[in-house]
Amino acid sequence: MNIIDIINKKRNNLELSREELEFAFNGYSNKTVEDYQMSSLLMAICIRGMSDREIFDLVDIFIKSGETLDLSGIEGVKVDKHSTGGVGDKTTLVIAPILASLGIKVAKMSGRGLGHTGGTIDKLEAIPNFKVNLTKDEFLKELEDIGMVVSSQTDSLVPLDKVIYALRDVTATVESIPLIAVSIMSKKIASGADKILIDIKVGKGALIKNRNDANVLKDLMIRIGSFYGKEVKCLISNMDMPLGFCVGNALEVAEAIAILDGKVKNNLYNLCIEIAMNMVSMANSISLMEARKKVVGAIESGEAYKKFMEFISYQNGDINNMLISNNKMEIKSLKSGVIKSIDALKVGEVSLHLGSGRVKKDDKIDYGVGVFLNKTVGDRVAVNDTLCTLYYNKVKDDFGIIEAFEIE
Amino acid sequence: MNIIDIINKKRNNLELSREELEFAFNGYSNKTVEDYQMSSLLMAICIRGMSDREIFDLVDIFIKSGETLDLSGIEGVKVDKHSTGGVGDKTTLVIAPILASLGIKVAKMSGRGLGHTGGTIDKLEAIPNFKVNLTKDEFLKELEDIGMVVSSQTDSLVPLDKVIYALRDVTATVESIPLIAVSIMSKKIASGADKILIDIKVGKGALIKNRNDANVLKDLMIRIGSFYGKEVKCLISNMDMPLGFCVGNALEVAEAIAILDGKVKNNLYNLCIEIAMNMVSMANSISLMEARKKVVGAIESGEAYKKFMEFISYQNGDINNMLISNNKMEIKSLKSGVIKSIDALKVGEVSLHLGSGRVKKDDKIDYGVGVFLNKTVGDRVAVNDTLCTLYYNKVKDDFGIIEAFEIE
Repeated sequence: MNIIDIINKKRNNLELSREELEFAFNGYSNKTVEDYQMSSLLMAICIRGMSDREIFDLVDIFIKSGETLDLSGIEGVKVDKHSTGGVGDKTTLVIAPILASLGIKVAKMSGRGLGHTGGTIDKLEAIPNFKVNLTKDEFLKELEDIGMVVSSQTDSLVPLDKVIYALRDVTATVESIPLIAVSIMSKKIASGADKILIDIKVGKGALIKNRNDANVLKDLMIRIGSFYGKEVKCLISNMDMPLGFCVGNALEVAEAIAILDGKVKNNLYNLCIEIAMNMVSMANSISLMEARKKVVGAIESGEAYKKFMEFISYQNGDINNMLISNNKMEIKSLKSGVIKSIDALKVGEVSLHLGSGRVKKDDKIDYGVGVFLNKTVGDRVAVNDTLCTLYYNKVKDDFGIIEAFEIE
Repeated sequence: MNIIDIINKKRNNLELSREELEFAFNGYSNKTVEDYQMSSLLMAICIRGMSDREIFDLVDIFIKSGETLDLSGIEGVKVDKHSTGGVGDKTTLVIAPILASLGIKVAKMSGRGLGHTGGTIDKLEAIPNFKVNLTKDEFLKELEDIGMVVSSQTDSLVPLDKVIYALRDVTATVESIPLIAVSIMSKKIASGADKILIDIKVGKGALIKNRNDANVLKDLMIRIGSFYGKEVKCLISNMDMPLGFCVGNALEVAEAIAILDGKVKNNLYNLCIEIAMNMVSMANSISLMEARKKVVGAIESGEAYKKFMEFISYQNGDINNMLISNNKMEIKSLKSGVIKSIDALKVGEVSLHLGSGRVKKDDKIDYGVGVFLNKTVGDRVAVNDTLCTLYYNKVKDDFGIIEAFEIE
């Protein structure tokens, strides 16, 4: 077996065997396959696609590249969720406490942001002293003790995904539905939950640009789950505009708290309720209507809020000393009319340039900066009304954020 | 402009602009585009193809990556030929002296062999003292003095082709008709001849595996030539069995001499006559029938043979001291019947392993080894008849060459 023949086979639209996939992908881990060979194969996969059999095998090869988490010692149904990345997406911070307060165990390994999309771990690190790197034992103990845990994905979980993703990112091979599905599902299955909800973002600010691709990805992830004995449910949600009013790490934690405290009922609130009720319905095998009542009840009773604070304390976080920058710049409307759209990609990029994210992998994040949307889609605005507020520190620049607002 | 967007565009089957092709390919030369990015783009090109406009632009980008040869100071029609690579292909050594003896100028830059296919320069180096690296001035002077010259392709001629070909070779992106055409035609156009004959090999031992691909390549190369004001003619010839009786450097030179001396009339002789008559017909604007008469006449009169010897002497070669190994191993037939086929790829590989070629780029060649075919396709053989003779030096092994013979 040699890598040239394997690449040629995929180029010629033939199905690769389990052994050929192992030779190529494990070979890449072991450095017997070069990066320029793997990128050639990835491009052939992007264009030619993969059969279900190939995809199921590749998921298994990905999982077996590292350690897996065994949650079978923990009583009850263990759930997990994943969003395919967006701007202002802090749903995990809201949903996990809701579910845990309802007795459903949430074991979540999260990632960091890259580019214009944020990551839950970066957001949690905005809370002083919050510990994101847990050992396996700490992870399991917290799950048992308080019913939820969010930790940084360990290097030993699906390490192959990390190296392949890094290569895809620089070779224009990110947008392949089979490769996206393999990347997500291998991590979710390796993380050990029984029931998994995937929130597929579609739109300008998202990886998936159109609803048709989202549906193909959805069906594929459900088939992968079913093959591995996992119940998978997918929601498809819009990512043309940012989720919620806040973009930037500390700002987003603050918004999640306001939602859990019942003080904000925006598009973020609605999406959190929808995701949470689907997860409760799956976990407890009850109707969506019943599940919805429980979820709303968890917020209104204050139980979800309490659980969030318990979780932050458990991981050492000092929520009272979280800092949002005092330097503000208000962006005023230059015309009057109704806001037709707010470009999530543009808002995400401005927040990134203010310092809330990383352009290169080892950039340092400024947790206190970001964008607050004073107005949202559908709002009527007059000239000079504040559209949004930029929270800045070192970089004072509006990066032309006004272009994100389409007003008619 | 950035390379990711350019790769994405080709992946999505969109046409790349001249500027985008320059950004990618010149960027690869300048090392601003990484090899894993270029291989991803090459695979997208392999699968998606290229428009004629893209191909013409890329040929020009390739040519402009180095120096070109200006033959306009040399009087008369300048012709050039190229074969797409085969086993036992020593046609250049036969055809160039035929044409030169008929007053047609042959200015030929040749390459070295790679893998199981041989290269004319390696064959000429089997002749002691033969000088293959000529300066531009030496090249032009010889062309003027004796009407023919064969020299090693200089590093300054289409240097981009060298680096791209090396990458294609290890990323399964060799078999792309547009990329093959760009590679061949950029070198032929940069070499300055007016009229070019391309001998496209098809079959087991060749780069092009089927006649349909050969026809597509043929039409494309003619269009490229026409765009650049060059008259291009393509022949499509079979490469399922080796060309001639000899494979291996000194053996092949000896066979070329035997053909020029009128002593051998095998499949190599027939192909040489066909190529030469097409080139004479193009160069002198005469019918193929008239051209054929001239070509056969050049052999029968001994003029072509004399020209070959003049050429060898001119480049310092000592033909009388060329060595063919004295160690021979005869391979006997195990059954009786008629030879249905002789696998060119297998014979080429055995010769390679005996030492006549390079497995890695800096392997040293053993010029005296190779394979002599005692029998050819269509011959009737009895048990114990000699099928072929291996000439070996350091490596005494038959490498299972008997499997190359299909006898029924």
